[in-house]
Amino acid sequence: MTPLFTEDVELRGHIIDSLILPKAFDTIMDMGGDFDVLHIEVGRHKEDPSYARLRVKAEDEETLHEILAQLQNLGASLVTAQDVRTEPAPKDGALPPDFYSTTNLPTEVRINGRWVPVYPIEMDVAIVVDWENETAMTKPMLEVKKGEHVVVGHAGIRVRPLERSRQADVFSFMQSDVSSEKPKKLMIHEIAREMRQVKERGGKILVVAGPAIIHSGAGPYLAALIRNGYVDVLFGGNAIAVHDVEAALFGTSLGVNLQSGVPVEGGHRHHMRAINAIRNAGSLRAAVEQGILTRGVMYEAIRKGITLVLAGSIRDDGPLPDVITDVIEAQKAMRAALPGVELVLMISTMLHSIATGNMLPATVKTVAVDINPAVVTKLADRGSWQAVGLVTDAELFLRELTTALDVEMDEAL
Amino acid sequence: MTPLFTEDVELRGHIIDSLILPKAFDTIMDMGGDFDVLHIEVGRHKEDPSYARLRVKAEDEETLHEILAQLQNLGASLVTAQDVRTEPAPKDGALPPDFYSTTNLPTEVRINGRWVPVYPIEMDVAIVVDWENETAMTKPMLEVKKGEHVVVGHAGIRVRPLERSRQADVFSFMQSDVSSEKPKKLMIHEIAREMRQVKERGGKILVVAGPAIIHSGAGPYLAALIRNGYVDVLFGGNAIAVHDVEAALFGTSLGVNLQSGVPVEGGHRHHMRAINAIRNAGSLRAAVEQGILTRGVMYEAIRKGITLVLAGSIRDDGPLPDVITDVIEAQKAMRAALPGVELVLMISTMLHSIATGNMLPATVKTVAVDINPAVVTKLADRGSWQAVGLVTDAELFLRELTTALDVEMDEAL
Amino acid sequence: MTPLFTEDVELRGHIIDSLILPKAFDTIMDMGGDFDVLHIEVGRHKEDPSYARLRVKAEDEETLHEILAQLQNLGASLVTAQDVRTEPAPKDGALPPDFYSTTNLPTEVRINGRWVPVYPIEMDVAIVVDWENETAMTKPMLEVKKGEHVVVGHAGIRVRPLERSRQADVFSFMQSDVSSEKPKKLMIHEIAREMRQVKERGGKILVVAGPAIIHSGAGPYLAALIRNGYVDVLFGGNAIAVHDVEAALFGTSLGVNLQSGVPVEGGHRHHMRAINAIRNAGSLRAAVEQGILTRGVMYEAIRKGITLVLAGSIRDDGPLPDVITDVIEAQKAMRAALPGVELVLMISTMLHSIATGNMLPATVKTVAVDINPAVVTKLADRGSWQAVGLVTDAELFLRELTTALDVEMDEAL
Amino acid sequence: MTPLFTEDVELRGHIIDSLILPKAFDTIMDMGGDFDVLHIEVGRHKEDPSYARLRVKAEDEETLHEILAQLQNLGASLVTAQDVRTEPAPKDGALPPDFYSTTNLPTEVRINGRWVPVYPIEMDVAIVVDWENETAMTKPMLEVKKGEHVVVGHAGIRVRPLERSRQADVFSFMQSDVSSEKPKKLMIHEIAREMRQVKERGGKILVVAGPAIIHSGAGPYLAALIRNGYVDVLFGGNAIAVHDVEAALFGTSLGVNLQSGVPVEGGHRHHMRAINAIRNAGSLRAAVEQGILTRGVMYEAIRKGITLVLAGSIRDDGPLPDVITDVIEAQKAMRAALPGVELVLMISTMLHSIATGNMLPATVKTVAVDINPAVVTKLADRGSWQAVGLVTDAELFLRELTTALDVEMDEAL
Repeated sequence: MTPLFTEDVELRGHIIDSLILPKAFDTIMDMGGDFDVLHIEVGRHKEDPSYARLRVKAEDEETLHEILAQLQNLGASLVTAQDVRTEPAPKDGALPPDFYSTTNLPTEVRINGRWVPVYPIEMDVAIVVDWENETAMTKPMLEVKKGEHVVVGHAGIRVRPLERSRQADVFSFMQSDVSSEKPKKLMIHEIAREMRQVKERGGKILVVAGPAIIHSGAGPYLAALIRNGYVDVLFGGNAIAVHDVEAALFGTSLGVNLQSGVPVEGGHRHHMRAINAIRNAGSLRAAVEQGILTRGVMYEAIRKGITLVLAGSIRDDGPLPDVITDVIEAQKAMRAALPGVELVLMISTMLHSIATGNMLPATVKTVAVDINPAVVTKLADRGSWQAVGLVTDAELFLRELTTALDVEMDEAL
Repeated sequence: MTPLFTEDVELRGHIIDSLILPKAFDTIMDMGGDFDVLHIEVGRHKEDPSYARLRVKAEDEETLHEILAQLQNLGASLVTAQDVRTEPAPKDGALPPDFYSTTNLPTEVRINGRWVPVYPIEMDVAIVVDWENETAMTKPMLEVKKGEHVVVGHAGIRVRPLERSRQADVFSFMQSDVSSEKPKKLMIHEIAREMRQVKERGGKILVVAGPAIIHSGAGPYLAALIRNGYVDVLFGGNAIAVHDVEAALFGTSLGVNLQSGVPVEGGHRHHMRAINAIRNAGSLRAAVEQGILTRGVMYEAIRKGITLVLAGSIRDDGPLPDVITDVIEAQKAMRAALPGVELVLMISTMLHSIATGNMLPATVKTVAVDINPAVVTKLADRGSWQAVGLVTDAELFLRELTTALDVEMDEAL
Repeated sequence: MTPLFTEDVELRGHIIDSLILPKAFDTIMDMGGDFDVLHIEVGRHKEDPSYARLRVKAEDEETLHEILAQLQNLGASLVTAQDVRTEPAPKDGALPPDFYSTTNLPTEVRINGRWVPVYPIEMDVAIVVDWENETAMTKPMLEVKKGEHVVVGHAGIRVRPLERSRQADVFSFMQSDVSSEKPKKLMIHEIAREMRQVKERGGKILVVAGPAIIHSGAGPYLAALIRNGYVDVLFGGNAIAVHDVEAALFGTSLGVNLQSGVPVEGGHRHHMRAINAIRNAGSLRAAVEQGILTRGVMYEAIRKGITLVLAGSIRDDGPLPDVITDVIEAQKAMRAALPGVELVLMISTMLHSIATGNMLPATVKTVAVDINPAVVTKLADRGSWQAVGLVTDAELFLRELTTALDVEMDEAL
Repeated sequence: MTPLFTEDVELRGHIIDSLILPKAFDTIMDMGGDFDVLHIEVGRHKEDPSYARLRVKAEDEETLHEILAQLQNLGASLVTAQDVRTEPAPKDGALPPDFYSTTNLPTEVRINGRWVPVYPIEMDVAIVVDWENETAMTKPMLEVKKGEHVVVGHAGIRVRPLERSRQADVFSFMQSDVSSEKPKKLMIHEIAREMRQVKERGGKILVVAGPAIIHSGAGPYLAALIRNGYVDVLFGGNAIAVHDVEAALFGTSLGVNLQSGVPVEGGHRHHMRAINAIRNAGSLRAAVEQGILTRGVMYEAIRKGITLVLAGSIRDDGPLPDVITDVIEAQKAMRAALPGVELVLMISTMLHSIATGNMLPATVKTVAVDINPAVVTKLADRGSWQAVGLVTDAELFLRELTTALDVEMDEAL
């Protein structure tokens, strides 16, 4: 008979309703383990929490640890609680082999017998513990210094999974069901309502914006949202900024006239000339101050003083002086802009949206808008009930959103 | 030395500007032939037509005939004009082996020395000549009767290719360039202007409509277009009609509430119940007359008395009694509804749109709207400058179109 | 206080593991009901079935019935079992308003106190009871005759939901997770293994085939599968048959040379000539017998004597004499070919695949192959663990499949 | 009467066949100009070049210059040839406002009466002239130093457009016609033949590779191509390298087992652990030398000593120490690797492929492979007859390619 390794774990909350208990069963069996249900109490009424205690069994210790690590991500806690374990980082920017890699869910670690919250919440990073001050913080691998106390193994860690809201709102519409054939007008109005609520309670709204917004003629809508205070942080790349400047200076985007939709011969020169004009001015801000740039998304963002992070990419032309060409520096700038953000609109950019999504706690609500269903599925599928995906046209989405928010447009449109 | 077969052909019009001459050169060489330019006159000014006379050469007669057949489709006519040749159809619904298969371009055949227009213009069908009355008409293969005089070979046939309009309008925007990233608002307003003009001059507008219009909540916009006289002919299938009835009776489409976008449990029963309700009433018209169906696309179409053709498909549930389940009969009904149609909107249905496109002369302007770029490309690519494709959301497209046309909506919305 | 309507239901089996119990809780609450858990036993070990008895509550009778109807589809049965209720069909082809619309799951109805299986299993159809002989069969709405006893309401009906297999096979790989970025070679070899097993135990394999198979040059692979006995039933439309005949007669598909991939000028005439050749011969079978058609998918299907159903569609050219142009007749022919089918390959055709999927019991394993992820998602998402979707190229899929099955190809390739 | 500005231009070569003359007519009229055909000679035979002299007219000087600039890109040269004009760069990294922005076509400038070739050929960059040494080179805007002589205006510049090859090869198959429904096996074998020829004549082959290659299990094919000398330069990002390392160390890619396609629980930890393992080793090369990394694409690239450029992106995890995180530095490294490259395979990565495409002369043949038709269209549409697009599965493409090249695979597969 094979020797058995066992550990008892507990699960609490809406564990049946939110599919946590079935997932726990699945996980154990899929990973080659086994379990006994030691005790189970199912809430008799819909508001009642449930409780389960399981004995997890595996044939070797490593499998048991793997299983326990997975169960922790579902919110299970070990019945025999221990302190978190740490090991020193072996060198700058590298971790001990058995380091704990975080989820995007609220997490606590047990330090000297007390459960301490880890902050900020971010996925796929390390946790560094300050044993003296009894604090714990996440750090990207790259930023960990040699000798820092990095959490390893799975003991003394507690994750709080999202429970599914019973209150039906737009963010629970589309669980894993992204389709271009759903009615969108009402959804957009719900998103507008959510934006108003975030602003009323002092939260921040982040927009991650792709260049198709400008190409499709939707720049003025985004500019109006910024001007009216609905955007606190704007993430983008060189392309959206260049197209926006081109639109402001020449009325074209990649040489296509934004009023008529007709390509203007000589258009690719507009693109490079727009970049050159800003490089000659010194920066976007300098171009605004010198009266060169007098309209558009970048103009409004600078005039309104919102946080603007333009991250470089390998395909950039130019780039504009304002673009952070080192991607690690750009990630730092993005991370620094996230505290306080409660709602994120990701519009027509997979690259920047995935980068942003990787840094966001699961508790932040996200709206992913793209005309390509595959992109929306990828962005909206963050394992939570907090994301909504719309397969639709960025132009018509933003147009409807400004209408729903009663945002005043430029006379020019 | 190989024996050469030759024939002289002429090309006239904007043959350089509209790429007809280069295509002729290409065609001859791609098919293994050769040519001499006997004479060429290029218009000195942009309005001037050009003229070219070519001697086409091939090593065998069959290749020469193949080449001449292709050149005819580009508008070339043989210098030594002969009468068209015909052979009797060998049996009902079958043609002589060497039958001439039509294009969707205006075509003439030479009967007893006179050039006679062929009508109606339709692609991939046969031409039947009445030598006595000196007339020629197209007929689908299936409808040709044994013994009818079917055009064979390539002699005595003249095709008039479309010349590219110098006047920039929406229908020349997107020659082979379909993108979701173009500004669409202005294009939609141009389409609205075109619709108004068609109606003013007494032309007909055909809408080919897919079920996604109803799913996406855009049914009321299409209903309003019908009510306001902007739709003369409506082509669709069982699905759009069933979803429309479901929306009218239950407020859902495939069980999804059209106001909230939330699936209603028990929704698939709405679908089958909607069908059953109409089958019990006898037909859509009967359901309107009995006061069972009181709103929606089908209701407005019946009340307004426009031509409605619902063509069956293998995936139909039910179907509704109004659906023509024999696809050949359905094609006949569609064909019968085409005369007078000057503009076609194809919205969110590839199947019915391709079927319609196959029957349309190239001179009819078409607008193809779908969120899938591949569908739009397929539909808009009809080898003409008369088609425009929009990669966008049917819901937001129709919403903008009703706005552009100042169409009054139901209070209910 | 509102008056309460209640009913007790039971659930049995792997109801937690297969997510049935959580779905039941969800359903009740989403539909505005409430529940008490009267009794629950969770299997202590992974093989143990679980059991739950719930008291379902609602404020009105209609809501309660709606909820119970939904719970039935999850496998719940009423504690107080009654006989099924029927009402006579009001007219030919129409049902009583409260008719029970079937699922694609194994279903039983209670007749005179005995649970009787319903057959054949098909979704969205009616159940007709023969009280005298104590049998029950499904019937499409259209085929129900006036006066037949149609099941109404929800009493006396029992549905057996699919339980998730613990045994990991290819058909549980991709539950709701369709991606083009998964390794496919192994999956294709698993499908081949499944095909061998089906044939060994005497089951039938159905292939639903779209015209892209021919365009992409994959026709010879499908022909080889037929020749080697791996296809018992073949569903398709006019297009695949016409392209296959064109390929056999001219070596092209829609005028594109299948060896070189280069368009042959004059190609659209091949298409119509292929149709005409078969129409002149009389039928595909006649063309084979007359030695006109000597290779390809249709040739092998006819020579092998497998069941071939070609269903018409509104976009058909011709069509071939073998095509069933009435879609209702075509559905009947498809239905008649289904008994004994254990595995279905749906390749590059959304229309025929959806039509087929609508008729299949959930217990039949299906493989959906398309290069468009949206199509695969739509086809593979049949609410079961029996469907696998591959986002890939039909040509390379079939090539790999013939390799995996050691199928001998024509020398010609 | 409006004063007219005129200039005479000449066009030579296969200007009708390659559509250059019609495009010139179009360009002039689309830009609001007019023209007279002063002289035209059309080659009487297919090998004969043609010649046209046009008088271009416009109402103002700016329009005339715009038109001439466009005509230059079509290969027109001014009849009254002048030297190229230059102005000093106003500051480091910025250009004079009227700078000439290059195409990706072979270009000459006239220096002191002599036509001098510009090198290297790259699109959207500036030309810097060394008047003393009579040389001209392209420079990205960012690298131009204050005071360097930058070409402005349009005088003294000559561009040689690509002429369409009469020889049908795989690179002329798909002019603007990208479809998943074409036969691909033959195309892949043609590409293999082209690869062999490039290697035989000592040219270089560049592969731009996306992470889906690893996910889809195609890593071993790419590794085998490298090992067998078919790849001289490899461009990618952090993701493909990380997934490749994960596959080498754990047999998974993003936690999905590459043999079975089944997600391994705990998989996201493999991803971060792979990064950590390399960071601990110091670099990919160090990991190979230390015997940590013993198989896969990166291993073969390092062991074979090919040029490897990994460019950072904002969504990178880690990143690996070998990734160039500054995108401008990465562009420089990519540019430095291009000389000698004659063929580029772009596989499953839009970002890196567009970046590469922007740097390539139009004369380099490119093959774009992706399962998403929109990506292939974007990549293959470089305005030349040198690009071929395949809408297909990276895994099955690479598998077929290794077969076509008779490349020996690892026994392990």
